[in-house]
Amino acid sequence: MVVKVYGPAYGSTKRVLVCLVEKGIDFETVPVDLIKGEHKHPDYLALQPFGAVPVIQDGDYTLYESRAIIRYYAEKYKDQGTDLLGKTIEERGLVEQWVEVEAHNYHPPIYTLTIQILFASKMGFTADENLIKESEEKLGKVMDLYEERLSKSKYLAGDFFSLADLSNLPFTQRLVSEMGKEYMIRQRKHVSAWWDDISTRPSWLKVKDLL
Amino acid sequence: MVVKVYGPAYGSTKRVLVCLVEKGIDFETVPVDLIKGEHKHPDYLALQPFGAVPVIQDGDYTLYESRAIIRYYAEKYKDQGTDLLGKTIEERGLVEQWVEVEAHNYHPPIYTLTIQILFASKMGFTADENLIKESEEKLGKVMDLYEERLSKSKYLAGDFFSLADLSNLPFTQRLVSEMGKEYMIRQRKHVSAWWDDISTRPSWLKVKDLL
Repeated sequence: MVVKVYGPAYGSTKRVLVCLVEKGIDFETVPVDLIKGEHKHPDYLALQPFGAVPVIQDGDYTLYESRAIIRYYAEKYKDQGTDLLGKTIEERGLVEQWVEVEAHNYHPPIYTLTIQILFASKMGFTADENLIKESEEKLGKVMDLYEERLSKSKYLAGDFFSLADLSNLPFTQRLVSEMGKEYMIRQRKHVSAWWDDISTRPSWLKVKDLL
Repeated sequence: MVVKVYGPAYGSTKRVLVCLVEKGIDFETVPVDLIKGEHKHPDYLALQPFGAVPVIQDGDYTLYESRAIIRYYAEKYKDQGTDLLGKTIEERGLVEQWVEVEAHNYHPPIYTLTIQILFASKMGFTADENLIKESEEKLGKVMDLYEERLSKSKYLAGDFFSLADLSNLPFTQRLVSEMGKEYMIRQRKHVSAWWDDISTRPSWLKVKDLL
């Protein structure tokens, strides 16, 4: 069974794609153009009623929300490919904790930067420089806490690569490359080493430029 | 081993407490006063570096982020108390999906309403009426999608009560009681029946007024 993944060009979807590659699961991608409003088409809303990417179809099974999808595949194929959940329930607890930190602390400011810096003109509005400055400060504070954590363990949830690290890949890649803010990573020694490690994984190199 | 739970008065912490009661796990609570800034105290930051509630201590194990903690206990005590994760990996996938929907779609507007309506004066600022109106509209749209979902299954993830329903309890309770916006629930037939069901569970009645 090949998993069908909608919206491969977008950051949230790339979270799913890199997980599938780590787990050795075959997939095919279906482009969805948010700028053209394809996510508001009735056929798409029948799959994902909130009109967001990604959504996957795996035979009869449909699932949306990127962090739900990666948990599903990491658990379903626990013994195949890279173990992304930790070996014990306590390790998994820490994976969940750091996935939540990514979702609620790291993601909001980096997502705002992405929209304001990369998508404002495509979406027909003028970037808000104050909001950019404020978001960069917020993201910097979260990165300071990542730095402290990564001074104690190689990866966010412990000494193993997990869903928590993987979840940070897509938007941090945009920050480093398209947004020209690599200095935010390089100013922090342990974040910098962690970024070099996770961003050069074969899974990410395979997925990062998929459209 | 009694689980120590910090910040019982707050909505996010009540997500954890109601989970512990459903699972039949003993706990004790440690008050944290956010208005007095107790979450910025070095002792607290040593447990939860982001300065948020809740955090739990279970022997040597410390864990934060409410939705990580509830996943941890639901999995660790899978066969004790109420099963909150579904019977199959596919059911668990849907639980994860709807927990994510609560976190990313339902929670942001209901949290804004909570802060603006209930906490503005305590926190020393004037409530923003436009933001309240806008947040209520956003929440209403999410509730419309809950209504559609709940017309097809008794609970969010399927025909079983799960972490996905439980996660909605604390802030919806405040919306209905302290914020006086019960009409948002009553305008929607299936949401209304679902709310009557989940908000009268013995676990919630035990936890909702804990301080």
